[in-house]
Amino acid sequence: MPWAKKEFVTLFEPPNPLRLESGRHLGPITVAYETFGRYDPGHPNAVLVSHALTGDSHVSGRYGPDDKKPGWWDTVVGPGRTIDTDRYFVICANVLGGCQGTTGPSSIDPETGRPYGLRFPLITVRDIVRVQKELLDRLGIARLLAVIGGSLGGMQVLEWAVSYPEVPAGVIPIAACGRFHPQGIAFNEVQRQAIMNDPHWAGGDYYGGPLPAAGLGTARMLGMITYRSDESMHRQFSRRIRGSSEGVYQDFTPRFEVETYLHHQGEALVQRFDANSYLYLSRAMDLHDVSRGYNSYWEALDRIRAKLLVIGIRSDLLFPTYQQKEIVDICEELGKDVLYYEMNSPWGHDAFLVDYHMIDPVIRGFLAGLTAG
Amino acid sequence: MPWAKKEFVTLFEPPNPLRLESGRHLGPITVAYETFGRYDPGHPNAVLVSHALTGDSHVSGRYGPDDKKPGWWDTVVGPGRTIDTDRYFVICANVLGGCQGTTGPSSIDPETGRPYGLRFPLITVRDIVRVQKELLDRLGIARLLAVIGGSLGGMQVLEWAVSYPEVPAGVIPIAACGRFHPQGIAFNEVQRQAIMNDPHWAGGDYYGGPLPAAGLGTARMLGMITYRSDESMHRQFSRRIRGSSEGVYQDFTPRFEVETYLHHQGEALVQRFDANSYLYLSRAMDLHDVSRGYNSYWEALDRIRAKLLVIGIRSDLLFPTYQQKEIVDICEELGKDVLYYEMNSPWGHDAFLVDYHMIDPVIRGFLAGLTAG
Repeated sequence: MPWAKKEFVTLFEPPNPLRLESGRHLGPITVAYETFGRYDPGHPNAVLVSHALTGDSHVSGRYGPDDKKPGWWDTVVGPGRTIDTDRYFVICANVLGGCQGTTGPSSIDPETGRPYGLRFPLITVRDIVRVQKELLDRLGIARLLAVIGGSLGGMQVLEWAVSYPEVPAGVIPIAACGRFHPQGIAFNEVQRQAIMNDPHWAGGDYYGGPLPAAGLGTARMLGMITYRSDESMHRQFSRRIRGSSEGVYQDFTPRFEVETYLHHQGEALVQRFDANSYLYLSRAMDLHDVSRGYNSYWEALDRIRAKLLVIGIRSDLLFPTYQQKEIVDICEELGKDVLYYEMNSPWGHDAFLVDYHMIDPVIRGFLAGLTAG
Repeated sequence: MPWAKKEFVTLFEPPNPLRLESGRHLGPITVAYETFGRYDPGHPNAVLVSHALTGDSHVSGRYGPDDKKPGWWDTVVGPGRTIDTDRYFVICANVLGGCQGTTGPSSIDPETGRPYGLRFPLITVRDIVRVQKELLDRLGIARLLAVIGGSLGGMQVLEWAVSYPEVPAGVIPIAACGRFHPQGIAFNEVQRQAIMNDPHWAGGDYYGGPLPAAGLGTARMLGMITYRSDESMHRQFSRRIRGSSEGVYQDFTPRFEVETYLHHQGEALVQRFDANSYLYLSRAMDLHDVSRGYNSYWEALDRIRAKLLVIGIRSDLLFPTYQQKEIVDICEELGKDVLYYEMNSPWGHDAFLVDYHMIDPVIRGFLAGLTAG
């Protein structure tokens, strides 16, 4: 398998900026993306993978012999894997508003020569998908075999199915919903407050200065709780304490293993992720509602022409399964070709990353069916 | 009904400080408490009510004709109510470590003449209960008809049953557990980080200066999410937006109703609660484990002599019902006199405050049985 390579393309150049859902215009927009496998124009085999909040275009493989860590879904995407790059041409692009190569709030605003910061316009999942569509057009890909992704990635999958019903033959939204729910908005707002309360955040203009590390770290700690489950934390940590069990009675130092784990996760994210991107993408989740501009949720879902494989996770705290089941129920009533699969995993929202073997047969089968169809 | 009145007593005066679970000593300790109804030494009718994290001794009634807001559980405790103060003598004391009259981190340290701040020792639920026991001894109350409380209050109830098995005839822990679980510790740690990251927190020495309002407010916002449920937020807020629906696409101002609700809750708590007390009491929850010092959880629960009415809430995110059921299962195996009642409420952890009518018959019946027994 060749080394992975991040590529860049610039879209929406003057005089044709992107009109965002907010009504504001943005351009030019650089998109970082990676492709895996070989495109077969005769037998549409292109699979678009959408990434989650802190993901990037590097879904599979390694960048070179010294690259220690493979892509974020390398267990699922690669030669012979569930999404087999020997058969499928896989595309994954960093989302609009991100910080891994695609234009976002940490990018240079051409009007000022400085990072956008909060001058970057709010974006939505629909805007993110619109940019992906432009990328595919530029790559000369008119039809997709499938779009697949989990979490914020799954939101994009559903938006693809509704906004561009003629493009994908199948869609696989995992641990996602068609419109974000109030508890999720609530969790996101607390995370944004943690960032914005950090004095180093400085109204979003922290570039070149100290980073809002404490704020972003705390946001990530809360995010991680919502990506796991009580059950998985019992298994992983129980009430175990690091070091002397008496120390925990002496001061507020985090000593429960679940605490040190969360702190580690917070610190790790600060090393690789932009706090403003975190704000923009979490707000894009809040604003996500495929029915916007239609008369009803039903009307929006009725636009779907793709076959659907909707995947839920029984222990998911952030996207409880009633949300996926609602989509399935409506699509069944509308006569869509829809399958529901529930992962019986204790790992919560992150199960699609952790218990990837559970979804292997059902995704393989679904993709094979699309290829045959 | 007479006006409620907060009373104070000072315990653990020199040379007899309280030896805490941490091994440190604390004294003197002032306790703020309120009593309702009339004590009948001949027919033990005393009911101790334990309050939750941000509660206080003011469980019922009003302080005077101009007092607009009754006590926090006035719907349940009062003349003719579920816990009928015409029949029962009700005692409620502000917890050790609190900030509503009982000694806590905002109290003056007699050694320095300044507020303790973080020089206050860590406390546990067992320490809180030990102080309540001393209060009862001072009031000349050797036996209790019952101890009742929800959340942190319910933790105290279980600790009462295990530490002082000879005192209560019955115990009613609501939405509580015998040992706090890792997800709960995780939520608490994020809340503490929000407070400690606030520069106004100043290592806990903020008294006399600006308060860590943003930090405490954010902590409360997260707390409120865990006290409610996704289901209740759908009912209360759905995805409704305050003001123009277009504004939400323009900037990060909280505009979803669920956001403005949480911000309001955060700001309200800052007006009435001490940030350091929040830290100490949330840590007391983390440290809560009735089995500490015993060979097992079973051995600890086997000490219980009181009849138990264990109440769970089906939509409780913070104390999921498997925790109450575990207590019930073990107590049944141990041959205890135990009842389980599950509130079929969508309101989450706060259901014991919101849907109080649901628990009225079962608590009335349980108390009547204790009185007869």
